[in-house]
Amino acid sequence: MSIVLDYGDILTPRLGSNGIEPERLKTDLAEKFERAHAKIEKTVICNEGGFIDLESTWTDLEEVEALAQGYKERFNAVVVVGMGGSSLGVQAVCQALLGDSWNLMDDESRDCFPKVYFLDNLDPVGVFELLEAIDVRRTLFNVVSKSGSTAETLALYAVIEDLVVNEVGPDKACEHFLFTTDPSLGTLRSIAENRGIKTLEVPPKVGGRFSVLSPPSLFLAALVGLDVRRIIKGAKIAKEQCKSTILRDNKAGIIGTLLYVADLEQKRNVHVIMPYCDRLQKFCQWLQQLWSESLGKAQNLSGDLVNNGPTLLTARGAADQHSQLQLFTEGPENKVIFFLTLKDHAGDINIPVEKLEFDPFRSLSQWRLGELLNLEYQATVESLRRMGRPTMTLELDKLNEEVLGELLMLFMVATVYAAALYEVDPLNQPGVELSKRLTFELLDREEIDPSYLPKTDSRWRLGETSSD
Amino acid sequence: MSIVLDYGDILTPRLGSNGIEPERLKTDLAEKFERAHAKIEKTVICNEGGFIDLESTWTDLEEVEALAQGYKERFNAVVVVGMGGSSLGVQAVCQALLGDSWNLMDDESRDCFPKVYFLDNLDPVGVFELLEAIDVRRTLFNVVSKSGSTAETLALYAVIEDLVVNEVGPDKACEHFLFTTDPSLGTLRSIAENRGIKTLEVPPKVGGRFSVLSPPSLFLAALVGLDVRRIIKGAKIAKEQCKSTILRDNKAGIIGTLLYVADLEQKRNVHVIMPYCDRLQKFCQWLQQLWSESLGKAQNLSGDLVNNGPTLLTARGAADQHSQLQLFTEGPENKVIFFLTLKDHAGDINIPVEKLEFDPFRSLSQWRLGELLNLEYQATVESLRRMGRPTMTLELDKLNEEVLGELLMLFMVATVYAAALYEVDPLNQPGVELSKRLTFELLDREEIDPSYLPKTDSRWRLGETSSD
Repeated sequence: MSIVLDYGDILTPRLGSNGIEPERLKTDLAEKFERAHAKIEKTVICNEGGFIDLESTWTDLEEVEALAQGYKERFNAVVVVGMGGSSLGVQAVCQALLGDSWNLMDDESRDCFPKVYFLDNLDPVGVFELLEAIDVRRTLFNVVSKSGSTAETLALYAVIEDLVVNEVGPDKACEHFLFTTDPSLGTLRSIAENRGIKTLEVPPKVGGRFSVLSPPSLFLAALVGLDVRRIIKGAKIAKEQCKSTILRDNKAGIIGTLLYVADLEQKRNVHVIMPYCDRLQKFCQWLQQLWSESLGKAQNLSGDLVNNGPTLLTARGAADQHSQLQLFTEGPENKVIFFLTLKDHAGDINIPVEKLEFDPFRSLSQWRLGELLNLEYQATVESLRRMGRPTMTLELDKLNEEVLGELLMLFMVATVYAAALYEVDPLNQPGVELSKRLTFELLDREEIDPSYLPKTDSRWRLGETSSD
Repeated sequence: MSIVLDYGDILTPRLGSNGIEPERLKTDLAEKFERAHAKIEKTVICNEGGFIDLESTWTDLEEVEALAQGYKERFNAVVVVGMGGSSLGVQAVCQALLGDSWNLMDDESRDCFPKVYFLDNLDPVGVFELLEAIDVRRTLFNVVSKSGSTAETLALYAVIEDLVVNEVGPDKACEHFLFTTDPSLGTLRSIAENRGIKTLEVPPKVGGRFSVLSPPSLFLAALVGLDVRRIIKGAKIAKEQCKSTILRDNKAGIIGTLLYVADLEQKRNVHVIMPYCDRLQKFCQWLQQLWSESLGKAQNLSGDLVNNGPTLLTARGAADQHSQLQLFTEGPENKVIFFLTLKDHAGDINIPVEKLEFDPFRSLSQWRLGELLNLEYQATVESLRRMGRPTMTLELDKLNEEVLGELLMLFMVATVYAAALYEVDPLNQPGVELSKRLTFELLDREEIDPSYLPKTDSRWRLGETSSD
């Protein structure tokens, strides 16, 4: 198999008293997991809820690929305009499989597939720089919002629409847009119908942070030349493995269950994800949203106030050995470190030490950069173990479409299992509604009523000059 | 002044019972701070320890600027090769003041200042892509390691040296390197002396994570055309403000003290830094190292086992309102959110809504993107307040050299104050030594002895095929 989960370093035989007793994987935790599995089997494993519905994805792929092929011939850049789950999944896929230098490559090196950019924030400096850098006349703007009414996305669309109309004229402008949104509801849907803008439908039951394997997201992958069928193939492999009701046979089950136990029983409520592979950094941000937003809930399913939710902290091996590792090693006992490693670093680079006669270089002899990276991982996991700090590791054979699909599905199912154990709803996000509503209320005032938000209090403001 | 600290939303009058009683800023916390201040006054404020020694920095600036000027004429790109504190500070400065599109600009737009790249990890894919993308013959490699013996940095140097010798020949290769390292010790120093490579000296008392205002780091800023004297000017302003022994007059004191109280008394041990300004993302990573590594300590200064240290989590406004905000709002009561806002977003962009007749666009009327970003900040801080979640905010007038210098100094001093309150040594990092030693032990074996690290145990490995 292409992904191996090693969880020895979170168990008592390796970690001592800070660990989890392995016998429990056959007794109480096995039972807990079996109950959680039963709860979500229909919605997740058997697709009735549809939100990780690979079977329907599979049938839509031809349409997605054909659409992508058509756009490929007309555009040399695509900009994905969207917030959070509408952007992070695609960013994760593109960084993992295209790398960070894709946009620096010339057309030939990219096989004429388009460059790909993301507008996922309102900061005017970044928006300006991006719109300056691209040739609008050869750019497709994929505007993504499931609800079709995300304020930031609509604001960005308004700015871009103006620019495109100026560049190509009002008649041709609509050809530069593709809206990815709800089949019938929302402002984007209305605009699309009014202006004849092409659309992709977000499957109604697929929420943003679980949408990375759905057609709208796979369309973008196809557009930049990735083999979306192999992504789905990997996801199917992971999903198949996750059907087992036996905890010890179920990778997603082990991940979800052990992290849940570490959090609620051991107060290890910071879950660190630390890949020794730079192309997985955006994946970690995707996972941060998935894990934090799905599990961070005030109320459980019974309506009790629980204020649950582990904090997902991202780190980067080996770089963060020089930054965050000190805290992980000596700080509070409130963390589990989850490593991702790569057996085969494509295009590994020899360290040509024979020319360097100075002392430490002899130690580097015979190693390559990727091997050194992996040695650093080994040293880190071992030093954490000796300090009684629990870790888990997913070992990837290599990083390609299939492995990435497997990885994405594995963590989506693990998240749903964890939610079932925490007894919270992984699909909602009630905690952000207030902020959204307040934003619209603030927006709606031509001049903000100073009494609307509590006045700042000069007693607790420091550094203000008296004239302010 | 250019930076205002607003800490009303962490105090009881605004936050209710989850807050800190403001009276304490005049009583016990004022006294605690005064004692902390006295402890570190000589080393920090009066420079005797030298590690934030702006006075000596100032006198070295001419040399630094002259060196930068010479290189500017010969090279069109510079690569900083270094780990952690040798890289993060300069990355923070460059992103904040040059933006993310600097390397995409042509020579004219950059006023012929060089492009700037960072090699701060061993991942061979990233190393390969970068070395492919640059013209080695016109590139300066600034290799930075205070000790001069960081394994990753030496390995990268070996790879690059080979490449440079191939491109320009062995005689000219040394001109493409500048080593930034200890004045007398370490492998880089030996190589420099042996090969006639030019060096910059790291001031011996300045540790990596506190080195952003020291000459080696300012050299790089000067090389890309930044006004280093204005950076230092801002830092001096902040340092001047931090001389006060009166807690309520000392911005760094308030930051360090309130976060310390939130952590140790209220168990709010996750400190989130969330700028509503994309150019401050690298700054947040710099701060993550500074805060985590300086405060995350197993022992206090008396040698007691304390396992101290808040976790610094980075977030990004407004984007993370669609990702992490759900957890911040409804999850455990273990966080303080520290916002950074910008009053004046340079080149703010109008939202041309008058052409869009659809409903929510009317709400966007009369706003610009940066204003909308700031409204989202207001809505977020207010919704967190209503949920009883504490926040603090630093409001920056704008983002330029002076403000950045002020910001960097403010947080370095706040970190040292916090360390004095926690009674830990902010300057050491004993927790990473074991991992470094294990790496070198692993490196030293021509073939790794399988008994050296504990054998993986197949009972706790999932997904492995039997043939493995």
